[in-house]
Amino acid sequence: MSSAPRDALQFPASDRGFLEAHLPPQDGSAPQSDLPFTTLTFATSLDSSLALSPGARTVLSGPQSKAMTHYLRSRHDGIIIGVGTAVADDPGLNSRISGVGGYGKEGLDGQPRPVVIDPTARWEFSDDSKLFQLCREGRGLAPWIITAVENPNAEKQALLERLHTGGHQVDWPDLLVTLKSNGLESVMIEGGGQIIKSLLSPLSMSLLDSVIITIAPTWLGEGGVVVSPARRFDESGNAISAARLKNVKWYPFGEDVVLCGQIKLSG
Amino acid sequence: MSSAPRDALQFPASDRGFLEAHLPPQDGSAPQSDLPFTTLTFATSLDSSLALSPGARTVLSGPQSKAMTHYLRSRHDGIIIGVGTAVADDPGLNSRISGVGGYGKEGLDGQPRPVVIDPTARWEFSDDSKLFQLCREGRGLAPWIITAVENPNAEKQALLERLHTGGHQVDWPDLLVTLKSNGLESVMIEGGGQIIKSLLSPLSMSLLDSVIITIAPTWLGEGGVVVSPARRFDESGNAISAARLKNVKWYPFGEDVVLCGQIKLSG
Repeated sequence: MSSAPRDALQFPASDRGFLEAHLPPQDGSAPQSDLPFTTLTFATSLDSSLALSPGARTVLSGPQSKAMTHYLRSRHDGIIIGVGTAVADDPGLNSRISGVGGYGKEGLDGQPRPVVIDPTARWEFSDDSKLFQLCREGRGLAPWIITAVENPNAEKQALLERLHTGGHQVDWPDLLVTLKSNGLESVMIEGGGQIIKSLLSPLSMSLLDSVIITIAPTWLGEGGVVVSPARRFDESGNAISAARLKNVKWYPFGEDVVLCGQIKLSG
Repeated sequence: MSSAPRDALQFPASDRGFLEAHLPPQDGSAPQSDLPFTTLTFATSLDSSLALSPGARTVLSGPQSKAMTHYLRSRHDGIIIGVGTAVADDPGLNSRISGVGGYGKEGLDGQPRPVVIDPTARWEFSDDSKLFQLCREGRGLAPWIITAVENPNAEKQALLERLHTGGHQVDWPDLLVTLKSNGLESVMIEGGGQIIKSLLSPLSMSLLDSVIITIAPTWLGEGGVVVSPARRFDESGNAISAARLKNVKWYPFGEDVVLCGQIKLSG
């Protein structure tokens, strides 16, 4: 199969330029590290919602932003989501950019590894789950499921042995080191709200190399799936901003804006 | 007094250009209407908060955005806030742009009329309130206070007679018509959260001619003063987006972005 399927997406070179500085380096210039290059990316409304409600198909950003997401996926070895998103959205998590494996090219070159974080193994996937369909059709890699439950099946035991998640909290350093040691040089975290919130906590935000957020000029209204980190306080007990970005660039993109930056660590 | 006070702000002509299309026309080309040209403007964090908590001095946007706000004020005849903001922030609501009255020019040319919406007359202002100080110092116009309480004082009786506020809800059409008939050809609404929410309701959003929002690359965290309209539903009872913008322009501005647009009315 070498012709691109009808649902292949175009993301022209003219649009790729502004993203390059915010992506894993392609020339092997990444510093030696036990951690993968880690990108946090998501799209919100003006009132910081990912969706009208969990699982609601919410058309938030425009077609250009959708193609961008698929391009970003092709530039990472792995795509991480939380189980809530897996259950609510039944996502594909592959890259449909024209020219990657399964979309105009033999094999699976350019397809990222889907990684579902499911501490309690509550995701009831089946042959009909989109991730499995795409895999069977040669349009996506088989997913990895990260859980803290012992022996859900033997397949991911090696991963599990190195994972020590406390309750429903994700141990991000351990998880990312484990993914790197299993061959993922770069990962992109897409959501949902709880996963993003945990990444933007003081203990985890330093793990992020790049943050890429799309904002659509829409208010979803109260009751949406809101992205907001936990409140932080200074030593005197006064509320302070929870997280800031540095090296900020804003790129108007269709009706949306794309914000690229890095986490600003205090001190 | 013709030299600019030390706290005068500069907003260079090079930065004014992008705003012009979103401001009240200066050439008298505004259509005949009983309504003033009405601009909604505010600044939020990435998680859609105006402030860490009511009244907390939250440095959200950069110095350029602050100067922009004062320039925008100089381009409107009136600045509207809710009583919550008046109580919490003790705001000045004047324009400190170099060259307006009180800031490098005699008189009060270019100073907007502060309008405080206080349905129950709960704002306990005094001579020390910033609005009154600025007025005494010749750096701002005397405020108007809009209330539904009868005879709080005689001064604003003419306004009150034409106001019919239901409970704490603001009757925006009546209020805006009243302000126009009292000489305000253009008004800018700055907040706070409840005022913005009521303006973004289906009954009021059509009154807005222009929306100008500054977004700072910071998350304030849960518990802030959030801007989010009430949820909306379609005829089948499904949640839909509460409000959208059209004719959208995004202008990167220092570390922030300025979003300009108009309310997109459905149908």
